[in-house]
Amino acid sequence: MASFVEDRLRELGLALPPPPAPVATYIPASRAGNLLFVSGVIPVRQGQPLFRGKLGQDLTVEQGYEAARIALLNALAIIKEELGSLNSVRQIVRMTGYVASHTGFHDQPAVINGASDLLVAVFGVSGRHARLAIGVAELPLAVPIELELIVQIEENLHG
Amino acid sequence: MASFVEDRLRELGLALPPPPAPVATYIPASRAGNLLFVSGVIPVRQGQPLFRGKLGQDLTVEQGYEAARIALLNALAIIKEELGSLNSVRQIVRMTGYVASHTGFHDQPAVINGASDLLVAVFGVSGRHARLAIGVAELPLAVPIELELIVQIEENLHG
Amino acid sequence: MASFVEDRLRELGLALPPPPAPVATYIPASRAGNLLFVSGVIPVRQGQPLFRGKLGQDLTVEQGYEAARIALLNALAIIKEELGSLNSVRQIVRMTGYVASHTGFHDQPAVINGASDLLVAVFGVSGRHARLAIGVAELPLAVPIELELIVQIEENLHG
Repeated sequence: MASFVEDRLRELGLALPPPPAPVATYIPASRAGNLLFVSGVIPVRQGQPLFRGKLGQDLTVEQGYEAARIALLNALAIIKEELGSLNSVRQIVRMTGYVASHTGFHDQPAVINGASDLLVAVFGVSGRHARLAIGVAELPLAVPIELELIVQIEENLHG
Repeated sequence: MASFVEDRLRELGLALPPPPAPVATYIPASRAGNLLFVSGVIPVRQGQPLFRGKLGQDLTVEQGYEAARIALLNALAIIKEELGSLNSVRQIVRMTGYVASHTGFHDQPAVINGASDLLVAVFGVSGRHARLAIGVAELPLAVPIELELIVQIEENLHG
Repeated sequence: MASFVEDRLRELGLALPPPPAPVATYIPASRAGNLLFVSGVIPVRQGQPLFRGKLGQDLTVEQGYEAARIALLNALAIIKEELGSLNSVRQIVRMTGYVASHTGFHDQPAVINGASDLLVAVFGVSGRHARLAIGVAELPLAVPIELELIVQIEENLHG
């Protein structure tokens, strides 16, 4: 069966990274019924941050937007590893975007759009999700973004 | 059928606002089985913040409490729009209250009570929820409060 | 039936505290289907914080690790009270660790490991969970840690 979702990723010029290894004693994702809870993803590749610093101080909104895209690709890599295929995603249910924010920075939504826009570009209507955008003090490895995702999976994969 | 929950809102002198439009590429709420995940709600009306600033610096606990009530009314407006009626709520499952907090402010629970108290006033026992209160650095539009809600809906509405 | 999970707690030299009373108008946990959403737990005993302050300023990573363990014991006490026995836990689905973080502190994962390591020690493979670690500005009662947990319960307890 063709991998439609990954075709769209390719059309966008994007490739899935290897799924990031947890940096501590937890697992990349956990399934309960037909919900998949994905561990926090950040803009790293092979354990190295691609962006460091805070919005409103060290990084522009455009850089934050790109960091959110990279973090989301890590989430997609985890989801694919868990489900076998991104086509098994029925719906992206919810995403929370935590944005490391310097005092006075209030444009968290524009930053998290980097991930939201990509979800809709890749999954279409199934990528439309409920969302929160929160500005936080500090994130692991000094990255500017961490994403939380809850995904509904196709019933036939119900574990 | 009478709208009991909205009757209680009226008795409290409250009216539902129009549901807030998302300020970015996401949707107001997402359903997975009989769980409804509501997007982050903040104390805005027609896109304009009714409160701005941080607790412990710009706003009193009483103002924060009122801001939490207003944010919650936005959540109720979204839930009504999604379900057709607030009577279709079986249980408010969980709420997280993110409170923009100046250094040294630790009274997040008293602020979030503005939303929790209103949930119980409006829904009765169905409004009793698990909760977290978190003090964060900055929130979108400089608002002092953002709420996360997960709602269980009546089985006959199971999508 | 023997309480295997509590046996493991005893072997670790740990005892469950009385479940913490909510400090405001909410409930300790809420069930939706076979998911149990636990309210935010912090390192308190009988309402008194055992640790206060921020990581990167007032507390070492080792102290934060211990605070996370204590917060988790409070979560376990709540879960036992809700389910009757910790053996009714099918899976710890997700944990979010909010760490009160001074500017420049980025070792949230090492702190939250205090809770993650204990979950795995106590529940074995059922304790392996998805996780987020977030550095926040301030927490209630000036504690350094707050934990969010979602737990899947055994089907025969499905409410």
